[in-house]
Amino acid sequence: MKTNLIRIAQDIEALSRYNATPGEGLTRFSFTKEDRGAREYIKKEMEKAGLRVYEDGAGTIIGRLEGKDQDAPVIMLGSHFDSVKNGGNFDGNAGVVTALEISRVLKENKIELNHPVEFIAIVEEEGGRFGSGLFGSRAMAGKITREQLELLKDEDGITIAKAMADFGLDPDNILQSARKPEDIKAFLELHIEQGPILEHEGKNIGVVQYIVGINQVEVVIEGRADHAGTTPMDMRKDALDAAAGVIYSISSFAGSLKDCTVATVGTITALPGAANIVPGKVIFTIDVRSKDEQSICKVIDFVKSRLEGAKREKEVIYTIESKLEVPPVEMDEEIIELHYKNCEALGFSWMNMLSGAGHDAMVMSELTKVGLIFVPSKNGRSHCPEEWTDYEDLQRGIELMYHTLLDLGKEI
Amino acid sequence: MKTNLIRIAQDIEALSRYNATPGEGLTRFSFTKEDRGAREYIKKEMEKAGLRVYEDGAGTIIGRLEGKDQDAPVIMLGSHFDSVKNGGNFDGNAGVVTALEISRVLKENKIELNHPVEFIAIVEEEGGRFGSGLFGSRAMAGKITREQLELLKDEDGITIAKAMADFGLDPDNILQSARKPEDIKAFLELHIEQGPILEHEGKNIGVVQYIVGINQVEVVIEGRADHAGTTPMDMRKDALDAAAGVIYSISSFAGSLKDCTVATVGTITALPGAANIVPGKVIFTIDVRSKDEQSICKVIDFVKSRLEGAKREKEVIYTIESKLEVPPVEMDEEIIELHYKNCEALGFSWMNMLSGAGHDAMVMSELTKVGLIFVPSKNGRSHCPEEWTDYEDLQRGIELMYHTLLDLGKEI
Repeated sequence: MKTNLIRIAQDIEALSRYNATPGEGLTRFSFTKEDRGAREYIKKEMEKAGLRVYEDGAGTIIGRLEGKDQDAPVIMLGSHFDSVKNGGNFDGNAGVVTALEISRVLKENKIELNHPVEFIAIVEEEGGRFGSGLFGSRAMAGKITREQLELLKDEDGITIAKAMADFGLDPDNILQSARKPEDIKAFLELHIEQGPILEHEGKNIGVVQYIVGINQVEVVIEGRADHAGTTPMDMRKDALDAAAGVIYSISSFAGSLKDCTVATVGTITALPGAANIVPGKVIFTIDVRSKDEQSICKVIDFVKSRLEGAKREKEVIYTIESKLEVPPVEMDEEIIELHYKNCEALGFSWMNMLSGAGHDAMVMSELTKVGLIFVPSKNGRSHCPEEWTDYEDLQRGIELMYHTLLDLGKEI
Repeated sequence: MKTNLIRIAQDIEALSRYNATPGEGLTRFSFTKEDRGAREYIKKEMEKAGLRVYEDGAGTIIGRLEGKDQDAPVIMLGSHFDSVKNGGNFDGNAGVVTALEISRVLKENKIELNHPVEFIAIVEEEGGRFGSGLFGSRAMAGKITREQLELLKDEDGITIAKAMADFGLDPDNILQSARKPEDIKAFLELHIEQGPILEHEGKNIGVVQYIVGINQVEVVIEGRADHAGTTPMDMRKDALDAAAGVIYSISSFAGSLKDCTVATVGTITALPGAANIVPGKVIFTIDVRSKDEQSICKVIDFVKSRLEGAKREKEVIYTIESKLEVPPVEMDEEIIELHYKNCEALGFSWMNMLSGAGHDAMVMSELTKVGLIFVPSKNGRSHCPEEWTDYEDLQRGIELMYHTLLDLGKEI
């Protein structure tokens, strides 16, 4: 291997120290002193690798390596360096370390590509601080306006604009982070799987075919709040009884589609919420994800038919409102083929996968063709202190990314 | 009729004015200025009716009318004068007005009974302020200790002892409110139904046979919190999916017992509680009520069998913990017979009923034989601003109580 396991481990461990919650997982919100520490580390490592380092208008770190053809479109490679609250050391960081390590290997081996390469460490992907996920990549896609920087606030009421200014970034430069599609050849991302499949299947690499589409809906069921002791069972309009009859069937329906569609009821509130009062109102969310928009529709239609049944049988009324609709994104076929070829050449086992989570690659697909690979997550855990990827597994992913980058970068 | 509809209406309306939340239902917590206002009104009306008025050690108002036989055991009659937060004008008040009106009719008609009668307005039945329901009646049953007055606190951290002292009551006198069973002949209570049955059946009076037993349990189901996008349906341990499968079946099982058993899941919490995370833990309560303890056990056993099924099928674990166990209480057969006889004589339609809610009569049954009647609740509503009982319906109940009191009071 060209990549170095010790350096990879050192990078992960170094980045883990810029953390607002030591001992309780990694918390690194954007434009904080933890961001500053990680940022300085990343910039320093990029500079050591001979990259020209700067920050874009949103605060994303870019380390540029010129190609033989300086006018050729750039290949971008990286991931985000912020974290959720009390998260782990690999979500995002694994992709940032991939960028650092590949830049070193290119320098050590004095490899010059035809295309320029930008190794990037993207800011604010998780939305942990401002509730605004995929911020850095959306800024590159030209989707963040100056006005939005004033609207989004953290828990303390500090706007992104204020946080950026306090951090030494000029919010008035935000639109300068927007990139032109014609200037970019491809975006490559390595991410941890955040799920149990690779480990379960015993594979080294997940070659992502699609980032799934996501529909989130909020269902409100209204019946009538009644005294739990004085209202006979046959005279109730119990909103939770009705909701339970809908919810318990959703999982099995999604599973029955057999195309990896997933559906989750993650939140539920019963009102007024007392042990001795029949719930008059229940609110719950459904999160449906699939590579196939038709499958998402099938789940939503199934839920609606169950809600209609509940309306008839339990004498409740309901509303169902869309809260989020993100279409599926297909990864680039050519990059997928390169990943296959390089896995075979390197002797890595691999499987096709869907990405059930959104990633910067999803937004970058609006600008360019994208490639995304997964490395295994121990026990499928993520967004928690237990999040772990064996360094050997991460190294295999980096090695694959290195070779795919070489293939892409050689082309004129 | 001997009773006076206008006075009844005036009493209800007068009491409704001692209210911390005008326009948003009745809120009258104990040992507050609203309590003071209602208390002064009740005492004044009792004094006008010739009663000897005093307060017991807990703050319950007692208006005593001596009988021909001063040593005969007393007949007590009344209900509570506190309310829930944002409740209605009839829950408790209806029974207090019953006491006031009957005392007036006795005086107007110069009726002297053999037995002394105590008309009572009981303090803190709802537990709205201190979370300690049935406080006044439990004090009469000798169940409230001086120590408990220091333990129970309101939202502002004020103990019952401090609230009583600030109100002018000496908490050290609490045990003086305890009554001796041999000194009491009976306790009579009129209460609003708080449910829809009398209205639905078109009956004037509900003659309560049993106050139901209540079991409240808390169920905790633990699965595993997972990412909603990255965890395949067949690799989840979804605690809410498991809980919904248990909950949706509870209502129909309780209904199938066909003995008026009721079961309610009134609260549910899913953790961690995010739209994009599979719930790892769900906590819910079940409130089961029946006149028959065996039926309560059947519901709990059914729930346990469903939980066992969920454990097997969904790979979750669970606990089920008892939070409240109150046995059913039977009303006195002789008093029930007097109610029947008087309903017939007065031309009131009646039906046998269960009381699905706890009442002071439940606690008083530890001291003496008790009788409880219900008058209709409009649309079955209670504990809300819409709570309503037509004054004519209330008057019929008061008339019935008056005649049953005469029957009981004449006896030596």
